[in-house]
Amino acid sequence: MPLDLSHLLSEQAKARKGSKLKSCVHYKNEPDFGFLAGGLPLPSYFAWDSVSAATRKPPFEGGLGANSTAENQLSFTVSHDSTALDVPLSSSLQYAVAIGPAPLREFLVEHTKLVHKIPYQEWELATTVGNTQSWDACVRTFCDPGDSILVEKYSFSSAMETATSQGIRLVPMDVDEHGILPEKLESKLSQMKAGGEKLPKVIYCIPTGQNPTGICLPGERRKRIYDIASKYDLVIVEDEPYYFLQLDPYVAPEARDPVAKSLTNAEFLESMVPSFLNFDADGRVVRLDSFSKVLAPGSRLGWITCQKSLMERFLRNFESTFQTPSGFSSSIIFGTLSRWGQQGYIEWLKALRTEYTWKRNLAIDFCRKYLPESVSTINAPIAGMFFVVSVDTSRHPEFATKYNSDPLAVEAAIFDTTIEKKAILVPGSWFEVREKDEQPSTTVFFRGTYAATEIDVLEKGIQRFGKAVREVFRIEKS
Amino acid sequence: MPLDLSHLLSEQAKARKGSKLKSCVHYKNEPDFGFLAGGLPLPSYFAWDSVSAATRKPPFEGGLGANSTAENQLSFTVSHDSTALDVPLSSSLQYAVAIGPAPLREFLVEHTKLVHKIPYQEWELATTVGNTQSWDACVRTFCDPGDSILVEKYSFSSAMETATSQGIRLVPMDVDEHGILPEKLESKLSQMKAGGEKLPKVIYCIPTGQNPTGICLPGERRKRIYDIASKYDLVIVEDEPYYFLQLDPYVAPEARDPVAKSLTNAEFLESMVPSFLNFDADGRVVRLDSFSKVLAPGSRLGWITCQKSLMERFLRNFESTFQTPSGFSSSIIFGTLSRWGQQGYIEWLKALRTEYTWKRNLAIDFCRKYLPESVSTINAPIAGMFFVVSVDTSRHPEFATKYNSDPLAVEAAIFDTTIEKKAILVPGSWFEVREKDEQPSTTVFFRGTYAATEIDVLEKGIQRFGKAVREVFRIEKS
Repeated sequence: MPLDLSHLLSEQAKARKGSKLKSCVHYKNEPDFGFLAGGLPLPSYFAWDSVSAATRKPPFEGGLGANSTAENQLSFTVSHDSTALDVPLSSSLQYAVAIGPAPLREFLVEHTKLVHKIPYQEWELATTVGNTQSWDACVRTFCDPGDSILVEKYSFSSAMETATSQGIRLVPMDVDEHGILPEKLESKLSQMKAGGEKLPKVIYCIPTGQNPTGICLPGERRKRIYDIASKYDLVIVEDEPYYFLQLDPYVAPEARDPVAKSLTNAEFLESMVPSFLNFDADGRVVRLDSFSKVLAPGSRLGWITCQKSLMERFLRNFESTFQTPSGFSSSIIFGTLSRWGQQGYIEWLKALRTEYTWKRNLAIDFCRKYLPESVSTINAPIAGMFFVVSVDTSRHPEFATKYNSDPLAVEAAIFDTTIEKKAILVPGSWFEVREKDEQPSTTVFFRGTYAATEIDVLEKGIQRFGKAVREVFRIEKS
Repeated sequence: MPLDLSHLLSEQAKARKGSKLKSCVHYKNEPDFGFLAGGLPLPSYFAWDSVSAATRKPPFEGGLGANSTAENQLSFTVSHDSTALDVPLSSSLQYAVAIGPAPLREFLVEHTKLVHKIPYQEWELATTVGNTQSWDACVRTFCDPGDSILVEKYSFSSAMETATSQGIRLVPMDVDEHGILPEKLESKLSQMKAGGEKLPKVIYCIPTGQNPTGICLPGERRKRIYDIASKYDLVIVEDEPYYFLQLDPYVAPEARDPVAKSLTNAEFLESMVPSFLNFDADGRVVRLDSFSKVLAPGSRLGWITCQKSLMERFLRNFESTFQTPSGFSSSIIFGTLSRWGQQGYIEWLKALRTEYTWKRNLAIDFCRKYLPESVSTINAPIAGMFFVVSVDTSRHPEFATKYNSDPLAVEAAIFDTTIEKKAILVPGSWFEVREKDEQPSTTVFFRGTYAATEIDVLEKGIQRFGKAVREVFRIEKS
């Protein structure tokens, strides 16, 4: 049984009431009932008779980039009539309960059971319009203005903005090249407690393919962080859009197999880093998933997984905000997944892994080729869409004289010079969450993407960035 | 020029910042640029090659209920390639700017100009995921906990819940059978001001086909209410999902034309009650529109119209919440509207009017047939999906003795008896916003729908409700 965490709810979440109108909806399905309590237009007035979609057939041979052919194409049509494979338009285009369409939810529940091992039974899964909205719902559900949350020292700036605009203070968690440092987190919390400070209520993190650092937090650290959250009674929100972009480790070209390793579905699932959900004996983890990075961002469809009694509060939020995802999204996504099947969907995720592993390899190869080793280091990511190049600003010959020993001045010089050379990587300081009076590290970094780009642009971008670093550091090309 | 209303923004709205990352996006479109700053998956990795939809062709002869035939069907396919008639999947399924897809916005701007006359130039229109989310965004943009808003004395309970859960106090505006009473509103505000009370910041109203009362606020009252809002510096949020469900006036069957009156498109537009936008010299109106009641609720696509500088604050909210509507919704809805054209869309709205006028007529005919005139009155609505039956509880022979002169006890008795007879209309008290210590009116009402129901259910529901009223009031069937 998960713990009762209602004491962690915000005032807003506590105040949300269920709809009295919705308490009557069940009469609609009673036979011979004069149901005049609704406001749902008749499906016969909907503007569409059917929608169709063209996708690909598992096992996606030839990869994601393969041309569409008669053999690999899969087309289907969703009408107003129910079938086992479809959410019909008569229900997907109607108002519906906030938890989401049943067939799609059932698919996702089954998928969740394939991937994660949640150590309690009373969990629930509800669809959302993506992790941005889901995270906003988390902030509103757990935090009141004046509360604080723990976040990775470098984190997704839009997610930070969602919290700070609501009057929530950010407390950075120190990280190394493997992510959040559990011992530092523990000492920070114990100091806050000893000092009588109000403790944060939530840990927000992007454990897999972290944005911006590309780091994948190892399972063993997740376990230790979970235990700390349990000890200090914190909610963990894991924002996991990149979870299924876990890659094969980077191998230098000279040692690399010419053909990418092929995993069975079971091996693929086995290789996944454990979710915080796997350690969640208390029911204090809220997991945010999304199809944005694996099917398409514009699907605007994600899901939240957490214990049932917290979900009940989320559903009251959903009823007052987005209600449900688009019915077109639900019908087309479920129609696709139902035809692929659970194993077919895993095949799709494997095809993504192959594609992104290949591009990550290229990015790191280009970095090794074009960046000056003397001042920059590359940490080959094993998940996500991003790589980072770290630059030791203290090695600049004029660090003190020209830059007044300010690492951010060197960062800005590299950024500006890169733009002059017609390329752009994002400065790490744009993502930094700093404690009051904290000095910036002398090592700065830049975030690049290998995923969201064509190969020629990737090479061009890294090459020009390398030139910019050399120019700023006055390093001759060897 | 609209007024600067930034002093009316909430703390949250003032605190929202634009994204630094988004400030770099323009480099993506520069030629020969090494753009590695993005996190947008490549469209070639999207799971879908195309989507198709089947709808009807204007002018929708035979009405909305007509069977689909080769002649009246309209099918189209949206691929990844741009055409003048489509938002291609390569853009609709990608992350995008919060204001919404350009072709759809342009269609809606043109539509707005056909329907409304906004007296200033600097207005903007942005897509949303429906009016529930739009209203939540309004509350967050204008109200801080402890603020108050003015609402119709009977209003949509879910919209009320959106405000109250955020710590916003509701101040009811008195209404009569034509809606908000301007003179009562003015005297309420002047009393509050005289008493040194903090004034409300927002008027929230559903001017057309109001939920639950079905009332359509006349244009002349809208003008007077606008002037009051201007005098007391209030924002008006008009929530208008039913705006295009304006109907022909009710005519008793004996005097009714056997064939419904046919309006030209120009006559139809001319017949529309003016939006608050038409009086909006100050730029203090925020209009919420939605396709939910006119195309399908599950489209989860609406739009907000207001002055540009307020819209800029809304867009920061959208970026932190839903981002954009579903790309499937955008592509399918725009693909439909672009093929219908502006005039074709008006034809669709006219077909809806014909359908809903017919059903409203039936509902009122049934009410006249089945309800006891001695205690109940019917106000035939000229807009929306709802009709209300008012019941004078003071006419109950045992009002004082059995019901302790409590109108709500009579209301509850009618409700319970109706349920026993296997029918349901919603008690008006469920929608009531009451001032502290305010006594309920002796006239109660019940909300029924004529729109969201089949004819046999409509007749059954009204007949059984009539029986319940007679039974509670001990009236013999005449």
